[in-house]
Amino acid sequence: MSPQSFQPPRRILMGPGPSDVHPRVLAAMARPTIGHLDPAFVTLMDEIKDLLRYAFRTQNELTIPLSGPGSAGMECCFVNLVEPGDTVVVCVNGVFGGRMKENVERCGARAVIVEDAWGQGVNPAKVEAALAANPGAKALAFVHAETSTGARSDAETLCRLARGAGALAIVDAVTSLGGIPLEVDRWGADAVYSGTQKCLSCPPGLSPITFGARAVAALKGRRTKVQSWFLDLSLVMAYWEGPKGGGRSYHHTAPVNALYGLHEALVMLREEGLEVAWARHAKTHGALVAGLEAMGLKMKVDAAVRLPELNAVEIPAGIDEAALRRKLLEVHGLEIGAGLGGWAGKVWRIGLMGQSATADHILKCLDALESGLLDAGAKVNAGKAQAAARSALSA
Amino acid sequence: MSPQSFQPPRRILMGPGPSDVHPRVLAAMARPTIGHLDPAFVTLMDEIKDLLRYAFRTQNELTIPLSGPGSAGMECCFVNLVEPGDTVVVCVNGVFGGRMKENVERCGARAVIVEDAWGQGVNPAKVEAALAANPGAKALAFVHAETSTGARSDAETLCRLARGAGALAIVDAVTSLGGIPLEVDRWGADAVYSGTQKCLSCPPGLSPITFGARAVAALKGRRTKVQSWFLDLSLVMAYWEGPKGGGRSYHHTAPVNALYGLHEALVMLREEGLEVAWARHAKTHGALVAGLEAMGLKMKVDAAVRLPELNAVEIPAGIDEAALRRKLLEVHGLEIGAGLGGWAGKVWRIGLMGQSATADHILKCLDALESGLLDAGAKVNAGKAQAAARSALSA
Repeated sequence: MSPQSFQPPRRILMGPGPSDVHPRVLAAMARPTIGHLDPAFVTLMDEIKDLLRYAFRTQNELTIPLSGPGSAGMECCFVNLVEPGDTVVVCVNGVFGGRMKENVERCGARAVIVEDAWGQGVNPAKVEAALAANPGAKALAFVHAETSTGARSDAETLCRLARGAGALAIVDAVTSLGGIPLEVDRWGADAVYSGTQKCLSCPPGLSPITFGARAVAALKGRRTKVQSWFLDLSLVMAYWEGPKGGGRSYHHTAPVNALYGLHEALVMLREEGLEVAWARHAKTHGALVAGLEAMGLKMKVDAAVRLPELNAVEIPAGIDEAALRRKLLEVHGLEIGAGLGGWAGKVWRIGLMGQSATADHILKCLDALESGLLDAGAKVNAGKAQAAARSALSA
Repeated sequence: MSPQSFQPPRRILMGPGPSDVHPRVLAAMARPTIGHLDPAFVTLMDEIKDLLRYAFRTQNELTIPLSGPGSAGMECCFVNLVEPGDTVVVCVNGVFGGRMKENVERCGARAVIVEDAWGQGVNPAKVEAALAANPGAKALAFVHAETSTGARSDAETLCRLARGAGALAIVDAVTSLGGIPLEVDRWGADAVYSGTQKCLSCPPGLSPITFGARAVAALKGRRTKVQSWFLDLSLVMAYWEGPKGGGRSYHHTAPVNALYGLHEALVMLREEGLEVAWARHAKTHGALVAGLEAMGLKMKVDAAVRLPELNAVEIPAGIDEAALRRKLLEVHGLEIGAGLGGWAGKVWRIGLMGQSATADHILKCLDALESGLLDAGAKVNAGKAQAAARSALSA
């Protein structure tokens, strides 16, 4: 074995994440590593917390990037807020709701499942009934933007229902943060976690989280120790917050260079403006859908609940979908996502996240997909997609 | 608030980690992000596993970098191997042994503590007695290289004692991997975790782990589910290993660019050769000690158990140690570490890890320390250190 340096192939990332990372973010990650207790690093930590508050639309003091990917962020919310014997109402309308159930049960708690079909948003009436049937439920947990289907749930209403029932609202915002409106304070979302590799367009590996006052009170009022030492927020907070002006206590060693990258991506988001970024996602989504429909393809999810950043497209009958994705990757360097679970083989998932939500991305994707489908013998309306997308972009 | 891109100050990292990161590793991390299911990424994963086996001196199939820092690696070993009601003998001779105890207890298990004074290695006779007094103990856990003190323990003997008692040997190799001999297979270490920011000279954020056959059998024979979903190795394995030729199952999204960096650092270790790297750490350590002693400073830990990569130096009486460290940082850009816990204010911790274990680093450190001590009015033998270190380097 004589391994060489790794040179990644050129790719255009339009799957369910990671999305394309801007050269500014890549360059930031290559700056020399400094110590995680260096005064300059402490300044960086403070700036990142402020920038995350901007992105989350919150004033929550406890707003930090966890040193692990989104699934660590999910687990962090549950292990800190849920204790053995608690009941948690968990909404399942895709893969990630199912994962929440798994987390609740591993905390020794009982998960009451509110199930909706894949591709639909969570049904608030069912949630209201489940909360009423389970008085004293510790939390309501749901996914704002289901990456497995591309369906959006009405987080504002669900948070209100949780609050009305005295339950904490635990919100998966992995695919929503930076891509669609997410109003942590206005909606009263109590504990929210996200990821960096979706609409923030960082490499994967960090999980921004924010905990509101009710969640912090629940954490402080625990009867039992948090089962995870690594994710115990009472320890993590002392590292990230500490007394003002220093005195942070050592917990673990933060991923210094990954945080350089997140900082730069958040600076870019701030420069663009959050609402502008939301509008960009919406506009490129409209153009992609116009192009796909002009080609004769069908969107899997109803327009009313469709996420702009994750587009589930029905695969035409008779197509070897894996072969087509492989061809897109090999010939065009284009990555789109496969279906997950029950939707495997039935849909492609086209991501328009962060730096991948541009006119150029859509036009390239439509071109590559059309030529791939034609080569595979699919019946598509050739030569219509580009014009439809361009027209939507200029509207 | 109008945040700017972050430009880290120039630093020379000679604390307890992170260590200086080579420009090749920094450049690798800045390569464009690709998808974590991309065939090219799967190749990278396979190469990293092989390179880690080289560094750990093991043939263990289950050898991967976890997507979290060393403390996640520690927790991974305990939550996967320890079940409620188990007994674990935990050796405590510094901060990190204490953290192991905390982990054991959060798994609902009982920790039997074998305590040794800070700065000493773990006493095998005490361990033998503890194992004899606790027949059926599930595991023996100890720290190979205590980062809080700079003391080395006899991992080979401790692993043999564990095996003799039918207990798994769980070994913290955070600061030993790549810096001093670590022979996972020859010693029969069952579950070993490390970090990337010490002697591998990557940025922090990943935790290489390796599990041997006995550990995998214990994992497979569990009566209960692993309490952490994120760290459940039965799920992580399916993502990192999967059936040969593809079919890896999605678990989380791996930190793509951080893995580019780890790959490059491991390629560099392979190019240098593991034994050569060990010898380099030993030689630079000898030269640093020669210089410090020529200056009149005292090493805190006995030579017999001293780690080359972490040097605890006694602080001369009457010195404001924090002020001196601040001066080293501000004037020389040099970071050395403070003492932890009971050794706070009593020692400095000078790291010679990975890319920071060079002649140039030692000479700069001795110069900066000497001038700082003289300015602070300490009695040191001025002008002797450089010659002593150079002499040791050329020996």
